[in-house]
Amino acid sequence: MTIRYPNGKLYKPSSEIQKVSKPIKKVKDLSYSNRGKTLEDEINETNHFYLISQMAVIHKKPVPIQIVKVEYPKRSAAVIKEAYFRTASTTDYNGVWNGYYIDFEAKETESKTSFPLKNVHPHQIKHMEDVQKQRGIAFLIVRFSRLDRYFILPFSILLQAWDNMESGGIKSIPLKVFESSSLEIKPGYNPRIDYLPALEKIITNKYL
Amino acid sequence: MTIRYPNGKLYKPSSEIQKVSKPIKKVKDLSYSNRGKTLEDEINETNHFYLISQMAVIHKKPVPIQIVKVEYPKRSAAVIKEAYFRTASTTDYNGVWNGYYIDFEAKETESKTSFPLKNVHPHQIKHMEDVQKQRGIAFLIVRFSRLDRYFILPFSILLQAWDNMESGGIKSIPLKVFESSSLEIKPGYNPRIDYLPALEKIITNKYL
Repeated sequence: MTIRYPNGKLYKPSSEIQKVSKPIKKVKDLSYSNRGKTLEDEINETNHFYLISQMAVIHKKPVPIQIVKVEYPKRSAAVIKEAYFRTASTTDYNGVWNGYYIDFEAKETESKTSFPLKNVHPHQIKHMEDVQKQRGIAFLIVRFSRLDRYFILPFSILLQAWDNMESGGIKSIPLKVFESSSLEIKPGYNPRIDYLPALEKIITNKYL
Repeated sequence: MTIRYPNGKLYKPSSEIQKVSKPIKKVKDLSYSNRGKTLEDEINETNHFYLISQMAVIHKKPVPIQIVKVEYPKRSAAVIKEAYFRTASTTDYNGVWNGYYIDFEAKETESKTSFPLKNVHPHQIKHMEDVQKQRGIAFLIVRFSRLDRYFILPFSILLQAWDNMESGGIKSIPLKVFESSSLEIKPGYNPRIDYLPALEKIITNKYL
């Protein structure tokens, strides 16, 4: 479909629009296999592939900013001169796939043996719990960076581990739990982290 | 459910987290009926009511910002010293309700007779079209500020008007079309703009 502005001017989606702001540079893993990309880069690329292939519409939410001071120079764009990072009240990614509401957070760990739960914020647990009650599909994408292994962890498994921690249990999820109770994704070329097939399995097996 | 940080500290959702940044103050309508609130305020309140009532999980996305310069003062939070507003690639609101993916944009007009299509951006049309293809529910919430009337305009009706404009037709949607082809919402106290019942009608009547 050709889309035009009301004045008749042809609309061209700019690559600028697709870009996601990355205010805080993450430490990059320079191993060959992921060519120095962060998990965020990999997921953004995957989502872009899904979007242009009309397979799913999933976007990363912008980083929430509290703006304090804005200046309006003559003949140029407004400049934000003072602002602060705020804590997001939700997860980073959401969207729609095949009628399903999708909601997830992407997390990396340097550990080779377990995923520390300190990587997850309590408000994210609360949010994913709310999503699940509305029959959305909530999960984590976890990358064990040093192992170059990727897992889709259904929210139900995360919540079990979280509740266990709250009752005085361990503060991490062992790699073995990932191997037994989550879905591993082998990274590919395009899409890089092809997570939609894993979601089908989650739905079919009623993991949620 | 009680939620705790991994260190055992009790998590209390702060009201700060619920707040949505409003970098650009909209002109406020000071009539009695909406007590000076912008449509954005009204919808945020409504979504907050839906969230705490466990009726739906719908959030406004943060405004996308391109960050250029950040300073890290000693013993205090990082300060953004130069940043610019960017164009969003999607609509402002999305979430999940009763298994459905919900996606919408809120628009106000001062006109008493029609809604000018220049209020809608081509990339928003494209985004809502993508959402519809994935069986999400896309729509506009339109407020005719001077009439104090609110409408839920299904994306299908918006797209008809857009296509008509592209073919040389009128560049606005007359109020009469809203009266005949959209769902009017009478503003209330809490929730202020109770749009979920309208969505049930849209789904039942296959407006989409």
